[in-house]
Amino acid sequence: MNFASDNTAGISPEIFAAIAAASTGTAMPYGGDPLTARVEARCAEIFEHAVAVFPVATGTAANALALASLMPPWGVVYCHESAHILGDECGAPEFFGGGTRITGIAGADGKLAAAALADALGQRGTHGVHHMQAAAVSITQASEAGRVYTAAEIAAIAAVARGNGLALHMDGSRFANALVALDCAPADITWRAGVDVLCLGATKNGAACAEAVIFFDPAKAADFVFRRKRGGHLLSKMRFISAQLDAYLADDLWLRNARHANRMAARLAAGLTALPGVRLRYPVEANEVFVDLPERVSDGLLAAGFEFYPRGEAGDRFVRLVTAFSTLEAEVDEFIAAAGALAAGRTAR
Amino acid sequence: MNFASDNTAGISPEIFAAIAAASTGTAMPYGGDPLTARVEARCAEIFEHAVAVFPVATGTAANALALASLMPPWGVVYCHESAHILGDECGAPEFFGGGTRITGIAGADGKLAAAALADALGQRGTHGVHHMQAAAVSITQASEAGRVYTAAEIAAIAAVARGNGLALHMDGSRFANALVALDCAPADITWRAGVDVLCLGATKNGAACAEAVIFFDPAKAADFVFRRKRGGHLLSKMRFISAQLDAYLADDLWLRNARHANRMAARLAAGLTALPGVRLRYPVEANEVFVDLPERVSDGLLAAGFEFYPRGEAGDRFVRLVTAFSTLEAEVDEFIAAAGALAAGRTAR
Amino acid sequence: MNFASDNTAGISPEIFAAIAAASTGTAMPYGGDPLTARVEARCAEIFEHAVAVFPVATGTAANALALASLMPPWGVVYCHESAHILGDECGAPEFFGGGTRITGIAGADGKLAAAALADALGQRGTHGVHHMQAAAVSITQASEAGRVYTAAEIAAIAAVARGNGLALHMDGSRFANALVALDCAPADITWRAGVDVLCLGATKNGAACAEAVIFFDPAKAADFVFRRKRGGHLLSKMRFISAQLDAYLADDLWLRNARHANRMAARLAAGLTALPGVRLRYPVEANEVFVDLPERVSDGLLAAGFEFYPRGEAGDRFVRLVTAFSTLEAEVDEFIAAAGALAAGRTAR
Amino acid sequence: MNFASDNTAGISPEIFAAIAAASTGTAMPYGGDPLTARVEARCAEIFEHAVAVFPVATGTAANALALASLMPPWGVVYCHESAHILGDECGAPEFFGGGTRITGIAGADGKLAAAALADALGQRGTHGVHHMQAAAVSITQASEAGRVYTAAEIAAIAAVARGNGLALHMDGSRFANALVALDCAPADITWRAGVDVLCLGATKNGAACAEAVIFFDPAKAADFVFRRKRGGHLLSKMRFISAQLDAYLADDLWLRNARHANRMAARLAAGLTALPGVRLRYPVEANEVFVDLPERVSDGLLAAGFEFYPRGEAGDRFVRLVTAFSTLEAEVDEFIAAAGALAAGRTAR
Repeated sequence: MNFASDNTAGISPEIFAAIAAASTGTAMPYGGDPLTARVEARCAEIFEHAVAVFPVATGTAANALALASLMPPWGVVYCHESAHILGDECGAPEFFGGGTRITGIAGADGKLAAAALADALGQRGTHGVHHMQAAAVSITQASEAGRVYTAAEIAAIAAVARGNGLALHMDGSRFANALVALDCAPADITWRAGVDVLCLGATKNGAACAEAVIFFDPAKAADFVFRRKRGGHLLSKMRFISAQLDAYLADDLWLRNARHANRMAARLAAGLTALPGVRLRYPVEANEVFVDLPERVSDGLLAAGFEFYPRGEAGDRFVRLVTAFSTLEAEVDEFIAAAGALAAGRTAR
Repeated sequence: MNFASDNTAGISPEIFAAIAAASTGTAMPYGGDPLTARVEARCAEIFEHAVAVFPVATGTAANALALASLMPPWGVVYCHESAHILGDECGAPEFFGGGTRITGIAGADGKLAAAALADALGQRGTHGVHHMQAAAVSITQASEAGRVYTAAEIAAIAAVARGNGLALHMDGSRFANALVALDCAPADITWRAGVDVLCLGATKNGAACAEAVIFFDPAKAADFVFRRKRGGHLLSKMRFISAQLDAYLADDLWLRNARHANRMAARLAAGLTALPGVRLRYPVEANEVFVDLPERVSDGLLAAGFEFYPRGEAGDRFVRLVTAFSTLEAEVDEFIAAAGALAAGRTAR
Repeated sequence: MNFASDNTAGISPEIFAAIAAASTGTAMPYGGDPLTARVEARCAEIFEHAVAVFPVATGTAANALALASLMPPWGVVYCHESAHILGDECGAPEFFGGGTRITGIAGADGKLAAAALADALGQRGTHGVHHMQAAAVSITQASEAGRVYTAAEIAAIAAVARGNGLALHMDGSRFANALVALDCAPADITWRAGVDVLCLGATKNGAACAEAVIFFDPAKAADFVFRRKRGGHLLSKMRFISAQLDAYLADDLWLRNARHANRMAARLAAGLTALPGVRLRYPVEANEVFVDLPERVSDGLLAAGFEFYPRGEAGDRFVRLVTAFSTLEAEVDEFIAAAGALAAGRTAR
Repeated sequence: MNFASDNTAGISPEIFAAIAAASTGTAMPYGGDPLTARVEARCAEIFEHAVAVFPVATGTAANALALASLMPPWGVVYCHESAHILGDECGAPEFFGGGTRITGIAGADGKLAAAALADALGQRGTHGVHHMQAAAVSITQASEAGRVYTAAEIAAIAAVARGNGLALHMDGSRFANALVALDCAPADITWRAGVDVLCLGATKNGAACAEAVIFFDPAKAADFVFRRKRGGHLLSKMRFISAQLDAYLADDLWLRNARHANRMAARLAAGLTALPGVRLRYPVEANEVFVDLPERVSDGLLAAGFEFYPRGEAGDRFVRLVTAFSTLEAEVDEFIAAAGALAAGRTAR
């Protein structure tokens, strides 16, 4: 039973069916197929805006390519200090950008606050050509602490970004989970709030390997095709990525999967926090539960074969538990029960 | 009916079944799954050598990452002037290498000749630090003209490379097609002949998106994991790439698919060359047919909906026709019949 | 009268004489001249160690090239948060390194503390390939706050670096000023303390444009010549850079110039701190004085034509005053007198 | 006696005097000095056009920075196959451009012909995103064979460039030598003929280390300052580069120096071609003489201590002889006399 990450899950059946449907016959390569066109059309409809959409196979590729298209090589992107682009992509943004820089800013709940951003930008000084130049802001929806940015929070960040001439990028690897948590329109937390480019994740929410880079100003996407090809991220049989995205966005699958995952996280959080010595680090809004477990509980669960990542702090165990579209209620309950048994001094199962 | 490329085909049923089998349950991400380990084991067995194997989703990524690991940023890789790395990857090798250079060398049949390589290397002069430094040689198996390199030809190239301190890379996007054409052991045309790194293609031969970078000296692969991650080419749900490669290499599927595609190419070539005014540009050894068609035939076939790429030369039409694992005999025959009808002054169908 | 920086000064007469001597006749280009060889020999003697020495024209080039030779593209260099490489080189290290990263660490006196470095390295976690990899440490001698690192402090930092497998780089743009402040052997605060590569500045201490990258392990410098040429930093008439360095290192000129500049800074600090409302930010050890001046004094001095950089903070003025080999005692005294007059409510002059 | 290159010469007395004049007193750094401003004003006057001018210390830096500012990372620059940017800069353009490509085109006299350029561009095909994109053309004035491009030839190349949407760069490391050979206005062979950016050399014609990147459309130079700083090519004591350029352009010094060097080359060519068995490879227009010498003559001259670069071909010796502003008539005559003696079967001197 795996709560290590939502990327340990398999493929959502509807997405799998789309791959199956695309697997026979022929189609023109490199995105010249009807499915790829349909993904763009779906995004335009869902986001209620003209868009340029580029499917890629990984979130790191999506983020790095998107950021490179928003910044000169001497640009700096500001983000929360826990951002995936800063800590988990082995410097992909720096590489794709030609030697750009990422500046992390502290903030509660894994979220960049508009005021903190303004403060950081204000401290840049006026050192001209000697400084790398502020060029973009990146926020992660949901954040690396499982919190969501409201439309108002995004708009406040966008206002600071615009006021400093910076583009706004959203790493939306868990965008759907945030969206259903907020229960708003996709447009409300993207272009309407000032987001320029969204990296829309599907992999963590039911796809095998599919992300979409969405430009809300298609005119700014002119160079993207070269960056993608040159990065080795233009798949020849693109239809197999597009098929995933097409199914993901059809019939609200992305929302249904996200709602399920969020519900499982809420259930998990509720069950665990009822146990003695268990403390939530952050309110659970999306599909991640950050929780301190008593050492005996954490160690016992791992020993019993439950999979999750301890965060490596001493004493009480700080762990991250992630639910997915495929997480079963029974699995959640079994985990809670095992934790409860351990908390009560018994064995896990 | 599509002879434009082998990347217009779908997914080989056995490979699709492997994706299906992997699509449920959970697995550790980023290659920490059993399928990825099994792919490496299969490669070691098939190639009869210790290997380090890295699955990626595109051939361009495979080539660019492999070359970057063989060269300093001021390195030059020598290849045939028609090589995919030179003309079809939008500078991916230069980008991943940090500003490396690719030098194309003319040669018959899309093949680099050992003597031509030696000649090019001999002309470099001794200009020291002012010159970029020769660092690697890359050959494409099968070549961009559909010809195959024999073990002896590869060994001759490798000898020149070694003699000049250069690494030898093989772009094997159609490696299986060449292998069955040569009817030899995989080792014979790779490490035994002096190849250091093979980019083994599967996408063109039945996979959806799966290539494997194979180092025959695992010690030289130490940095590869960082390059791959940093390039955005480490898939989180890696098992869906590995599942494809695993099925591809199991039960000789790769060889069976390649044999079929090669047979279809041979059948197509035989049928077309029997027509008046049709001339083969190169002997057909793998799964590509390069042929001059009378203008009326070429134009008529395109008008009738047959898909293939004209090569853009005036007068008689020079076209490339590619067969795949999924090409049907009936399709080949229909194409030949239509060409025959057009050659005889009738309509295509 | 210019206290803005030591780079506003001209050329030390002895260095100018060396340029003059080299200006006639011919010499082989690109460092194939006797002066360049003599610079390396002088460094070997002065530093009491085998060295590989590479003259370049700017400190930014020296630092960026040196760091690039110590790190892979996915490497991280740790330094003090005020380091020139982080805040004043427009990303040159990231550019030359191929997308590396610089992590600034807070610390008193512009100095990186060994304990803070160990702490930062300890927090890296063990996230493997997802993380950029710690690769190097850089310290600035004298620091950006005008303080010097003692041999013991450097050794402590080097011990942490070594323990983590990291190389140690020293930005020595004001190395001579630190050296005479410490009154020790050059070796004591470089290789003997664990420094791998020193960027020895001369420009700020009397040269027109001359810095030397000094590797204490010549074997590690093999690639440097390619990086330098490729960076456009191999001067054809190299002898005019080498002549500067040669004179700089001859007859203790570098030490004499630095002693003079340091004395002028001490005199300036002594004079200013005797005035009411003036406060030193850091003890003055080298040739920089960081001081808070009453607003009326600061503004009055600027209005009177004295040149220096206000640091941009509100209320009382925080300014940096830098002395050089060419600063006259009379200039220092005039500055102090003017500040005194302003502090006493009179005009500057 | 050194005919190896014009970069073996020293400093022109007028330029040296300018360095001397700048060597005392203070000036604001990084180009904030009056001399740097004056260089730009001089260029505007001399070239009869608004310009943005950026002094740098090496020709490789000038070329690489200029080209990077004209091309995206996936751009291709076309030039003659003997161009310095292709064969003598260790990949600096590729590095500064972020992985660009240089395509060399064959042509007589080291010169790119408009027709050959058009032909090469015509063969690019229409392969879209898979291809690197043609972005710029670079020509070298005077060429690497010592020939000059006429205004008409440049205009023809510019027309092809413009017709294909490409920028035109001129490597003018020997621009002055070409200019006086053509006896026209600087504007005639630059912006009036369609050149976008000129890298104006001074080092080979009397400076110590000074080149100027000149944009004829200052609006296109906005990013240049960041590229230059980031490349480590913004000198702190910039006035010492600018002083060289200022003197170079004052009172026609650049033209006088170039005329002298050209005269010496003509004298050398005339003297040598009068000898038996000596053959000019190219007409001598600027300050380079490419000549085949009998082996006995070539070897004898080298043995006698005359310095020049043999080009490495067997049998008769193909050598390059370069004259400079400082070459003495007596040196030329001595060389000719020595060659004549050797040709006549005697010793060199």
